[in-house]
Amino acid sequence: MHFADRLNAAVKRVGTPICVGIDPRPEDLPPEFLDKFPGDRPGVAESLRVFGDGVVDVVAPLVPIVKFQAAFYEAYGPEGFAALHATAQYAQGKGLLVLIDGKRNDIGSTADAYARAYLGKVPVGESFEPSWNADGLTVNPYLGSDGITPFVKVAAREGKGLYALVRTSNASAGEFQDLIADGKAIYQHVAQRLAQWAEPYRGASGYSLLGAVVGATYPDQLAELRATLPGIPFLVPGYGTQGGSSKDVAPAFDTDGLGAIINNSRGLTYAYSRPAARAKYGAEWQAAIEGAVHEMIADLAENTNAGKLRTPTAE
Amino acid sequence: MHFADRLNAAVKRVGTPICVGIDPRPEDLPPEFLDKFPGDRPGVAESLRVFGDGVVDVVAPLVPIVKFQAAFYEAYGPEGFAALHATAQYAQGKGLLVLIDGKRNDIGSTADAYARAYLGKVPVGESFEPSWNADGLTVNPYLGSDGITPFVKVAAREGKGLYALVRTSNASAGEFQDLIADGKAIYQHVAQRLAQWAEPYRGASGYSLLGAVVGATYPDQLAELRATLPGIPFLVPGYGTQGGSSKDVAPAFDTDGLGAIINNSRGLTYAYSRPAARAKYGAEWQAAIEGAVHEMIADLAENTNAGKLRTPTAE
Repeated sequence: MHFADRLNAAVKRVGTPICVGIDPRPEDLPPEFLDKFPGDRPGVAESLRVFGDGVVDVVAPLVPIVKFQAAFYEAYGPEGFAALHATAQYAQGKGLLVLIDGKRNDIGSTADAYARAYLGKVPVGESFEPSWNADGLTVNPYLGSDGITPFVKVAAREGKGLYALVRTSNASAGEFQDLIADGKAIYQHVAQRLAQWAEPYRGASGYSLLGAVVGATYPDQLAELRATLPGIPFLVPGYGTQGGSSKDVAPAFDTDGLGAIINNSRGLTYAYSRPAARAKYGAEWQAAIEGAVHEMIADLAENTNAGKLRTPTAE
Repeated sequence: MHFADRLNAAVKRVGTPICVGIDPRPEDLPPEFLDKFPGDRPGVAESLRVFGDGVVDVVAPLVPIVKFQAAFYEAYGPEGFAALHATAQYAQGKGLLVLIDGKRNDIGSTADAYARAYLGKVPVGESFEPSWNADGLTVNPYLGSDGITPFVKVAAREGKGLYALVRTSNASAGEFQDLIADGKAIYQHVAQRLAQWAEPYRGASGYSLLGAVVGATYPDQLAELRATLPGIPFLVPGYGTQGGSSKDVAPAFDTDGLGAIINNSRGLTYAYSRPAARAKYGAEWQAAIEGAVHEMIADLAENTNAGKLRTPTAE
């Protein structure tokens, strides 16, 4: 089944477009929780796995998709990657779509290898087997078509999705992305190419398997890109800790409340570290996360078209 | 010790600036070799490790540095990463500098996590420990300063190096990299920022720890960038299988034959698959690789300033 159709079905089923970002840094894990693990590298990797699984347990009934930040797992070497692999599988087993935020990029056969690695199947003996088996992957477009089309081909074959960086949420994003060439910003050139790459790969919903990462911290550009990129699903980082509000992300949605997933990482998974949550939930870190997800669901429902996703029976 | 000083010392010691790219794809490994491994995912990962170690055994006395293409290891999941980790350690044990070609990119604390992962130390219990402990990492600059400076800071602290993509060697590289903004191509804007980021981090040799990836397949741009980026070490892909010749890469060097390492992956490590090598070496795949490295050493020595690195006693 086409990635965008799977994603839209999942968003409609739960009634919210939230993507929970799982960015596990040992220094931010609940102290009570960390005390249970040995203080060596395999112990830290195991704490990341158990924490990630614990986040999944809380959010699986509430959201359609989770996004794993690869860097925090890669930090712990092969053991860290094993933790990522395990929690990603666990999340899929709980019905969540899984996005790996690796911002991978390379050309030709190397891009194909990354695509097969994360989304497709890799050669094993006489056959092919899935390896990471994620539902989606983030990619960086700086290398041009050679760096994107190998990913798109694998994703199309496997019913998987991609999100290419277009306009990122960081302060210095504009240093290259906003330079003007031929009357258009570089991010607009990227957007235009992305529309061409995406066009042949639309699902029944009209959305393509190739999406765009567009930060919440630049709402004018988000609105402009939503208008110029119909049928391109957006992954919107920057809500919450990075300063983006529900009003900032509102332009990302189409009139049905589809077309975008809104990522929140630290604001949800480290909710327990905020003094107010600490006072309310104490060491109950999962309850704090659950409370934060419900707050974000309500905020998006009230201030964006995502409110239209809430069916009367879900209220 | 500063990365550029370590690299220059290694280049002078062996008398050639070759970087051997290790891009192990199971379908390209010597068939006689592959038959020794079980036909499952751990078996494939183990074949990558043993092949990589075998390449290292051949090239360690001949070249200063090896570059691992992360994608081909990531393809085999956590077991693949374990193979990369093992071969990278093995190469350092044999005296080689190790570059991980991961083209990583992210912002702020996530970029810092990648940098600590590959080049620095990660928090483990009350202390910090190295994880991948590579000597250098490739990075993608599309996110601007926020995406590069966290890497530079870690590299400076740890005596490690970075190579940021500037002008890549692929056919579609120009789609974004050659767009003209304010009278300069985007890759030139990237080069200009890179010079600023690199300036505070020069070693005794005058070269910075922050280098640039500049493809051999566009020799005019390579010459221009060498002129405008004094003190920036280059990593030059595209020699050999991708079509770049020794004359194409010649502009990458300074007058002493320093300032650039020339990568060759498939042309060296799959030398045994060429009919002529097959006829000469049969199943002796390591001998075929050794022969190809000696040919490349001679080619660079004859047609570039790298010839000045050959001391009389080394001839």
